[in-house]
Amino acid sequence: MTANGYGEKFFFMSFGESHGKCIGAVVDGCPAGLYLTEQDVQKELDLRKPGTSIVTTQRREEDKVEILSGVFNNFTTGAPIAMMIRNSDKDPSTYEEIRTKPRPGHADFTARVKYGGYNDWRGGGRFSGRITASFVMAGAVAKKLLNETLGIEIIAFTKELGGIRINEVNLEEARTNRYTNEVRCPDKDTAEEMKKRIVQTRGEGDSLGGIIECIVLNLPVGIGEPVFSSIDSEIAKMMLSIPAAKGVEFGRGFEAARIKGSENNDEFYVDNGIIRTKTNNSGGVLGGLSNGMPFIFRVAFKPAASIAATQRTIDIETNEAVELRVAGRHDPSVVPRAVPVVENATAIVLADLALRAGFIPPVLKGKGKE
Amino acid sequence: MTANGYGEKFFFMSFGESHGKCIGAVVDGCPAGLYLTEQDVQKELDLRKPGTSIVTTQRREEDKVEILSGVFNNFTTGAPIAMMIRNSDKDPSTYEEIRTKPRPGHADFTARVKYGGYNDWRGGGRFSGRITASFVMAGAVAKKLLNETLGIEIIAFTKELGGIRINEVNLEEARTNRYTNEVRCPDKDTAEEMKKRIVQTRGEGDSLGGIIECIVLNLPVGIGEPVFSSIDSEIAKMMLSIPAAKGVEFGRGFEAARIKGSENNDEFYVDNGIIRTKTNNSGGVLGGLSNGMPFIFRVAFKPAASIAATQRTIDIETNEAVELRVAGRHDPSVVPRAVPVVENATAIVLADLALRAGFIPPVLKGKGKE
Amino acid sequence: MTANGYGEKFFFMSFGESHGKCIGAVVDGCPAGLYLTEQDVQKELDLRKPGTSIVTTQRREEDKVEILSGVFNNFTTGAPIAMMIRNSDKDPSTYEEIRTKPRPGHADFTARVKYGGYNDWRGGGRFSGRITASFVMAGAVAKKLLNETLGIEIIAFTKELGGIRINEVNLEEARTNRYTNEVRCPDKDTAEEMKKRIVQTRGEGDSLGGIIECIVLNLPVGIGEPVFSSIDSEIAKMMLSIPAAKGVEFGRGFEAARIKGSENNDEFYVDNGIIRTKTNNSGGVLGGLSNGMPFIFRVAFKPAASIAATQRTIDIETNEAVELRVAGRHDPSVVPRAVPVVENATAIVLADLALRAGFIPPVLKGKGKE
Amino acid sequence: MTANGYGEKFFFMSFGESHGKCIGAVVDGCPAGLYLTEQDVQKELDLRKPGTSIVTTQRREEDKVEILSGVFNNFTTGAPIAMMIRNSDKDPSTYEEIRTKPRPGHADFTARVKYGGYNDWRGGGRFSGRITASFVMAGAVAKKLLNETLGIEIIAFTKELGGIRINEVNLEEARTNRYTNEVRCPDKDTAEEMKKRIVQTRGEGDSLGGIIECIVLNLPVGIGEPVFSSIDSEIAKMMLSIPAAKGVEFGRGFEAARIKGSENNDEFYVDNGIIRTKTNNSGGVLGGLSNGMPFIFRVAFKPAASIAATQRTIDIETNEAVELRVAGRHDPSVVPRAVPVVENATAIVLADLALRAGFIPPVLKGKGKE
Repeated sequence: MTANGYGEKFFFMSFGESHGKCIGAVVDGCPAGLYLTEQDVQKELDLRKPGTSIVTTQRREEDKVEILSGVFNNFTTGAPIAMMIRNSDKDPSTYEEIRTKPRPGHADFTARVKYGGYNDWRGGGRFSGRITASFVMAGAVAKKLLNETLGIEIIAFTKELGGIRINEVNLEEARTNRYTNEVRCPDKDTAEEMKKRIVQTRGEGDSLGGIIECIVLNLPVGIGEPVFSSIDSEIAKMMLSIPAAKGVEFGRGFEAARIKGSENNDEFYVDNGIIRTKTNNSGGVLGGLSNGMPFIFRVAFKPAASIAATQRTIDIETNEAVELRVAGRHDPSVVPRAVPVVENATAIVLADLALRAGFIPPVLKGKGKE
Repeated sequence: MTANGYGEKFFFMSFGESHGKCIGAVVDGCPAGLYLTEQDVQKELDLRKPGTSIVTTQRREEDKVEILSGVFNNFTTGAPIAMMIRNSDKDPSTYEEIRTKPRPGHADFTARVKYGGYNDWRGGGRFSGRITASFVMAGAVAKKLLNETLGIEIIAFTKELGGIRINEVNLEEARTNRYTNEVRCPDKDTAEEMKKRIVQTRGEGDSLGGIIECIVLNLPVGIGEPVFSSIDSEIAKMMLSIPAAKGVEFGRGFEAARIKGSENNDEFYVDNGIIRTKTNNSGGVLGGLSNGMPFIFRVAFKPAASIAATQRTIDIETNEAVELRVAGRHDPSVVPRAVPVVENATAIVLADLALRAGFIPPVLKGKGKE
Repeated sequence: MTANGYGEKFFFMSFGESHGKCIGAVVDGCPAGLYLTEQDVQKELDLRKPGTSIVTTQRREEDKVEILSGVFNNFTTGAPIAMMIRNSDKDPSTYEEIRTKPRPGHADFTARVKYGGYNDWRGGGRFSGRITASFVMAGAVAKKLLNETLGIEIIAFTKELGGIRINEVNLEEARTNRYTNEVRCPDKDTAEEMKKRIVQTRGEGDSLGGIIECIVLNLPVGIGEPVFSSIDSEIAKMMLSIPAAKGVEFGRGFEAARIKGSENNDEFYVDNGIIRTKTNNSGGVLGGLSNGMPFIFRVAFKPAASIAATQRTIDIETNEAVELRVAGRHDPSVVPRAVPVVENATAIVLADLALRAGFIPPVLKGKGKE
Repeated sequence: MTANGYGEKFFFMSFGESHGKCIGAVVDGCPAGLYLTEQDVQKELDLRKPGTSIVTTQRREEDKVEILSGVFNNFTTGAPIAMMIRNSDKDPSTYEEIRTKPRPGHADFTARVKYGGYNDWRGGGRFSGRITASFVMAGAVAKKLLNETLGIEIIAFTKELGGIRINEVNLEEARTNRYTNEVRCPDKDTAEEMKKRIVQTRGEGDSLGGIIECIVLNLPVGIGEPVFSSIDSEIAKMMLSIPAAKGVEFGRGFEAARIKGSENNDEFYVDNGIIRTKTNNSGGVLGGLSNGMPFIFRVAFKPAASIAATQRTIDIETNEAVELRVAGRHDPSVVPRAVPVVENATAIVLADLALRAGFIPPVLKGKGKE
């Protein structure tokens, strides 16, 4: 498969650069007969749109999506769905310096070497976080598909930011509140704290990382294909494809490495005829297949590499040590805007796996029209 | 791509079951002209062979590999390399009970649902850890290929086991010592402690998890393809395909989520004409591409689900609660035997990415003969 | 791989419909550093543009390409190259009838069944010959890549049209003359005859088929991967993906089935140090690999299914027999406009195989700038 | 996808060489719950077994299949099905000469160049027609799957051999008689003639080509995926992957290029509630999708390149002209033994496409047990 594409049955191809003409996505394999409008995609894009609050970058982008193909009379046709947003607020001048002075923590150096200097270096080009807009476009289709056919719900939220963590998450709160505050944390008080921490760190010209938790409800038993397309293999691949992600864990994850088998094993029981487990340390995955319990994982994001403070680097043409101060407009933390990215990227993986496992028919009968 | 296969240019297909006739691997895409003998594969298989020490399962398997195709006069030909080990010590009778009583923490339940009961349930069948022998067979080829062409070295070891952790790892020690003790921990004293903990836990009929760290040396700059075949995306996918793995992190990983950008960014400098970074918080990855620094990641393994203690589960045919005591022969911790699996699985990913990026020519000139 | 995409290393994704907003192509995997402008693509598109002569459809389309991504400062960057032409001369009203009355020889019936009626039926939608514009966009990139790196030349032409055939083709004439007449036949007299036959047939409201021959020069020895990606397997797949193609043959093709081995085998000899064959019955392919001789194949195209004459069909909603007269604007023969499609589609296959076999480096040093 | 593998959902991996240890196949993606025994595979293999009659090679091979994995209690489990036959009658000594003297019409020269001389040259190695035994193994599974779930029947036969052709084929005769004579021609008189021609040509130390026709019955409407996985694209690819195949055509094929649209278009009508076409010039394909009519195509095979007569070639190490007389054991025509290969290879393609289009469920309920 191609490097910029993901999936077997629900195939997603991403294209575009940070300061090129556009960011785009093509989805191939979405069943025909799903009601789909630009508004379905737009509402997800709006959740990751930059420039909307003090905690995000001040880059102004309308990010208005155009569906170019694959939809006819507001229903998917079974043909590839191409979508695109035009870049408008491009100011590459502020990036001129990084052409030869690679920013620490960015792909400037590695991309330059790999592509012999022909890469579009403006704002990171193809390696910019801005490409996640294409994840959201494709994911919006996947999310609607999963929801309309299987009732699947995907809820991600900021679990930890700059060291501030919510330990107890109320699922109902997460569902309702996660997008009601700028940091996308379901607990209002914690959200307030996180916001303060961001504002303070931004003032220092610095940045923060964090952890996003994602909970998927109503997955049927048996999603995931052995061995290399298990549900956790595929989610892991997808999450690490999001710029700035540095780790992923399922269920109890790294903590499971520290407890005993007798503590970690989830006991089966029957609840109103449905087989469930009393605990959910596995995070809803057994043998790489969904087991019907909530599917839970967490993704660690590093602090944004773009910081206002002066940093030391080298000039790659002279090999001399230099100082670099990247002007530009930065997110003091990518975490809040990564929340909808995680949700939609998850939807892409699950739509693909649900189709591969035969849970979604090849033609829908007008699903999704309200 | 097929679910039981991995890779684009260096393609690995896995087959076989725990108590079927064999475990096998086919590698397609290995360049012609690599010196390769059964001994090259056997020596890696021997490192994960069961029944060799008190800390592993007592299942006795010779795991003697036969190369079936793709090698002629001890050189790879460019044709698919099929390899196989026959299963010999099969005693499915001890598993009879689990046909209807799914073991907690295992794939018995999910596989039964997914395959309508037609799955080979003996010892977990296709979902057994035993299938990782196929990872090792394919990985042995990849490891030799990487080493002979690019001098790449892959060193994994037990970083943490049952809560006991080594914090400072001496690379030279890791290289030399990791396979000199049963727990595959480079630090001898810590290894001794870990072993004691395992023996004690085994006595309690329980099991332990742990964390494996993997360090890859001599990777050239630019390994990894954007976006979905970045080096971390692919390694994450592969690692989560190993049974019992529950998480993966790169460089500082989850810890990076708690520090600031100014602390996490790795400063570039020039060292004898080579561009390096002063710290290596990134774990050798920038923008999903290798940056020439050691590539470092960690994998969390849950405690083995197979424990000797009596557990509660259900009878899936009657939906009644039952008790289950799995006789069988178990690993009290999969971690020690997972160390060579992690190394060889890593080799598969890197061989594929190195070939994709053009770092290895399609024909070698008799490389690898001593 | 996705159904609407082709290739491993040089991946081409096609999207768009006949009367939707656009036709588009994304190319992933083109090496960085190739000089590429919209003009390079436009000149190939112009060769298949409708409405340019009496022998083609009167649909008026400018088919002006926009490169959306993957090119920076007129060089490819290594990122996906998205390209698009907007549809302008859409007049679906003339097609209203075919929504329920499937045209004989078209995909109207099969697409309706497959997609439950949600397919875009206007002008055949995704099944229209118009989608071959996307083949040309991607192929234009491939053609330039092959030519600049390996000096490969691809020459297709009309070998036979409506039963009129040129038997002796002068390669130099084919190279120079094929696009100098409307039927794309290198022999001027035969071209004149073919044109007359088309004009006459058009007058009768009927259509003609034909055979296109394609000759590829300067292929190195060893292009093609065994078994399923042999050069002939891949070309066969690609050619049958062109709407209206009904057959493909290599070298002597179907004729070879009628001669003896002693006649068909091509004798090897050495010509100025280069190994060649005295005859080229194989069409330049031995064991699915290019052998250094001209690579030759022919593609049979059926007469265009769209004809002006009244035809009998059924009403798919009532199952009643009906008569159908499709107004629209038709090509009396698709063959002339299929010539550049065959050339560019061939380029896509060969670029992919050349990259897979390692004949083209991952980064070019500014190749292709005049 | 890997070069030696085919398919998306029903994935087939081929391995092995002519004079290596074995020929093998792995099938990944066959639904669980299909009754399958070694006898199901053996009976198809027996149809292509060498050494069974005067019209085939005298190489003696038992070709006894062993199913290595993926089947449990005689039902498929959903896990990869690995199968293998051991080579027994290996006599590479007769091939020693071809190591440096490439046989005309064979892959000896191209394979040597491509693999730098490391290819297994014995009897053509990976490029031998013997690898089609793996097509038959995988195809036997596919054939049974298609037949048990959709009632699909695949009937191939020798349509033309050495210039002798049957024009009118009675389907019932083809079904019943095709394997009752050595040349696999349904018409007894023509079969007798063909056999005489073979025996005569063999006496002359020469070989013959021919054409195989394949008719598939009971395909539902809508098999095939646009654009590059249309039913004809995929069949074309598969057929050209069979050694010695030089062309493929669908329905009227090359003949369609010579008639008019009004003659070639197949008129729709309703027959007992089922939509059919009065003629079947399309060969059952419209827009790359099956239309419910018999799916018909023909494959041209060149005369076997291995002939007993002395031929001229070169010595590749000295570049000198030499004479070559290949002893060995040859098929005077590959056509008769290619008939079951075409059938089974067709089954692989159709099983894959049927699964992709959702016509076969992921779990069967014990299908196929008599």
